[in-house]
Amino acid sequence: MKNFINSSDIQDYNYLLGEINKCKNGLSNSKSILKNKVLGLIFFNPSLRTRLSTQKAAINLGLKSIVMNFKDDGWQLELDDNIIMSGNKAEHIKDAAKVISQYCDVVGIRAFANLENKEIDNSDKIINSFVKHASIPVLNLESSVAHPLQALADAVTINENKNSNKPKIVLTWAPHPKPLPHAVSNSFIKMCKINNYDLTITNPKGYDLNTRITDGIEIIHDQNKAFKNADFIYAKNWSSYDDYGKVLISDNSWMVNDNKMKLTNNAYFMHCLPVRRNVVVSDSVLDSKKSLVIQQANNRTYAAQIILKELMSDEK
Amino acid sequence: MKNFINSSDIQDYNYLLGEINKCKNGLSNSKSILKNKVLGLIFFNPSLRTRLSTQKAAINLGLKSIVMNFKDDGWQLELDDNIIMSGNKAEHIKDAAKVISQYCDVVGIRAFANLENKEIDNSDKIINSFVKHASIPVLNLESSVAHPLQALADAVTINENKNSNKPKIVLTWAPHPKPLPHAVSNSFIKMCKINNYDLTITNPKGYDLNTRITDGIEIIHDQNKAFKNADFIYAKNWSSYDDYGKVLISDNSWMVNDNKMKLTNNAYFMHCLPVRRNVVVSDSVLDSKKSLVIQQANNRTYAAQIILKELMSDEK
Amino acid sequence: MKNFINSSDIQDYNYLLGEINKCKNGLSNSKSILKNKVLGLIFFNPSLRTRLSTQKAAINLGLKSIVMNFKDDGWQLELDDNIIMSGNKAEHIKDAAKVISQYCDVVGIRAFANLENKEIDNSDKIINSFVKHASIPVLNLESSVAHPLQALADAVTINENKNSNKPKIVLTWAPHPKPLPHAVSNSFIKMCKINNYDLTITNPKGYDLNTRITDGIEIIHDQNKAFKNADFIYAKNWSSYDDYGKVLISDNSWMVNDNKMKLTNNAYFMHCLPVRRNVVVSDSVLDSKKSLVIQQANNRTYAAQIILKELMSDEK
Repeated sequence: MKNFINSSDIQDYNYLLGEINKCKNGLSNSKSILKNKVLGLIFFNPSLRTRLSTQKAAINLGLKSIVMNFKDDGWQLELDDNIIMSGNKAEHIKDAAKVISQYCDVVGIRAFANLENKEIDNSDKIINSFVKHASIPVLNLESSVAHPLQALADAVTINENKNSNKPKIVLTWAPHPKPLPHAVSNSFIKMCKINNYDLTITNPKGYDLNTRITDGIEIIHDQNKAFKNADFIYAKNWSSYDDYGKVLISDNSWMVNDNKMKLTNNAYFMHCLPVRRNVVVSDSVLDSKKSLVIQQANNRTYAAQIILKELMSDEK
Repeated sequence: MKNFINSSDIQDYNYLLGEINKCKNGLSNSKSILKNKVLGLIFFNPSLRTRLSTQKAAINLGLKSIVMNFKDDGWQLELDDNIIMSGNKAEHIKDAAKVISQYCDVVGIRAFANLENKEIDNSDKIINSFVKHASIPVLNLESSVAHPLQALADAVTINENKNSNKPKIVLTWAPHPKPLPHAVSNSFIKMCKINNYDLTITNPKGYDLNTRITDGIEIIHDQNKAFKNADFIYAKNWSSYDDYGKVLISDNSWMVNDNKMKLTNNAYFMHCLPVRRNVVVSDSVLDSKKSLVIQQANNRTYAAQIILKELMSDEK
Repeated sequence: MKNFINSSDIQDYNYLLGEINKCKNGLSNSKSILKNKVLGLIFFNPSLRTRLSTQKAAINLGLKSIVMNFKDDGWQLELDDNIIMSGNKAEHIKDAAKVISQYCDVVGIRAFANLENKEIDNSDKIINSFVKHASIPVLNLESSVAHPLQALADAVTINENKNSNKPKIVLTWAPHPKPLPHAVSNSFIKMCKINNYDLTITNPKGYDLNTRITDGIEIIHDQNKAFKNADFIYAKNWSSYDDYGKVLISDNSWMVNDNKMKLTNNAYFMHCLPVRRNVVVSDSVLDSKKSLVIQQANNRTYAAQIILKELMSDEK
């Protein structure tokens, strides 16, 4: 694996799920291999789970982490080429990427969508500039359009809890007071496709995701109907993709609650966190025994660990 | 020791003082035991001594630290239960505490009093929510009402400098331009009580501390009288507890200076730092040979080290 | 070496260049010596290269780094003596320096010039206060008036690329929209003097640097003339020193571009980064094969590594 930018960078999910299982059970040891290597973690946006789980993964591997919150610790980066840099951006991303490559052996980048311009967000400039200009492997810690480490942790969690070979998984839109990016949903859908999971998407009209992502997946605009016989409910808010970055619904009619969960096949509840309690999902569902959210968070460590190992093993 | 939230969590001060003495003299080795463990350090407020000394303690123990400044690196946490989280708080503290427990083996929390609402501050919600919801030991790096690591370092410093079995210790209020929390004073008093030290408190009228803390300790409102025959002067500002969070006095009549120190039994001067020079204490006293402030700061490392070791040894 | 504050703290450049060469070729091993030691990195200003390269150097040496962004993680420091600290500064730098010395074995300080008061900037108060009050070696990560680690990395880069024993080096002023400090230029000039390089400075009238720094070096106010036969062009903006901190020129007549480079002896191009593309230098020059900027950035690691080793070996 050269870089890990998208769920489709994983060529063999089953192999990775097996490796992650070995990790979790202490049957994998790559500490000595990586112990003089450096992981750069570059955050353009806030982070809790990603920040801690990736550092924990590095510690498990013997990798040293250097963390930089780019906006606070550094300065603004120019993303466009052929620009006279006389404004407020002190450094070009191509130079930053080359320089960071001098000090690190692998670099993780978190850079959210701005939700102001669909075309710019879809071009995913920050992470793609790193891929283009860095001379070290690049790890996506959530970009404008993808969060493949979350999707891999979700795959591990589904794999650990499924009761049948082909469980019914429902990705449901849920309310949120602020407009949110599409990265988590995009990667979850891609991961389900690659693993050939039985996925249904349910969201209000006006909230259909990028059709290039959802192509081939059934979208049902009636949440109650979609929930029927579901084995896993994966809740996530996203802002409108058509009316880009907008919040169109402010009521709680799409919140996941006990009544809706009763329509399912005693489904597990999943969410990537952070979650707005009693907005996205009721306390009762989130705190129930069927809630897998903490297990998902825990699996982030092992997803990061196995991907870092893959990225670094290609470097040797 | 399950958690270290309050000075009273220490059951045997003498044992700990002995262990700290071994630490400082290089006679203690627990490096190999903890070397694959992770200490999370979560700061909701600024820090110099606590930030560096706790990381230094972790290095001494072979523990890996992951530091997070929650407000800058993350987002605001909801502290109340049964809330519809539609405001500006992105995650509930109970979820954050559970998630952090997935990545760390012990977590330190710094969360100051806001000094706006006495009842809220006294409930010490942030650290107590971590104690309630985290599945790992919780270390208090200064909460609304307690700073027991500082008090332990103070105990070590007193122990290293006392000339008699029962030295006279005076905790004196001192001026400060801004309202400050009560945590350091509270923990110092508790520590003195547990160790059965001969403690007197002196502060202006209107500045009496929480009577549940000061119960049994003489409070003298005449600073000169209180200083007589003192072996240790411990200076600290705190805002009014009765007129909660208010600054009632803005003159320098209570500043510790040479004339006041002359009333003592050639006393040592102590302060937890940071200190406002020539407001809380004169340069002359702070820079004198009797000033123990740097030794106190140094002992923070060993206090943190021995408490971390205790917390982790219970985890094994 | 007791501290590294200025290029003149290096007594034997040739020895250090040789040691750095050994470092880069993996022929130097000091990991075991320093593995229980702590490097404090205190940033009063943003940093990318310095932040990452110094941490990388520490990792190479087995040193543990503790990083603190002072303004965000801490509070403002009082720099003046005999002050009644009743304003917005919570701690005196002398106390901070003494305290940090309790937790670290060596401390690096970054504190830029404010460019508001020449006398204050020239006194370089923050780093000099650390030198005065810290009990551990102090490493300059760029102060008001000097950036000797950059100059050492520049010396390594020149040494690795020179084709003759005494190459012609031209330090050229270049445009920039914002006023910048003089530290990089000062240290580059000092380093060239110590190494007896053939240095010429070229800058517009009104932009002559501190004559105590430039004493003995030819200053040419005609950039084209200065570039003739140059083997190395080192571009850097600085604000006016006479009209202190001011930007006097806002056109691009002094930008380094292909036409100007054609006047040279097929010169290498150098810059410390970050660089404003098409303001300081054209894309074509910066991206050409003669550009050494990434190599300079890479050499920052080895410059820091060898200086840290020198500072720590004096400590043993």
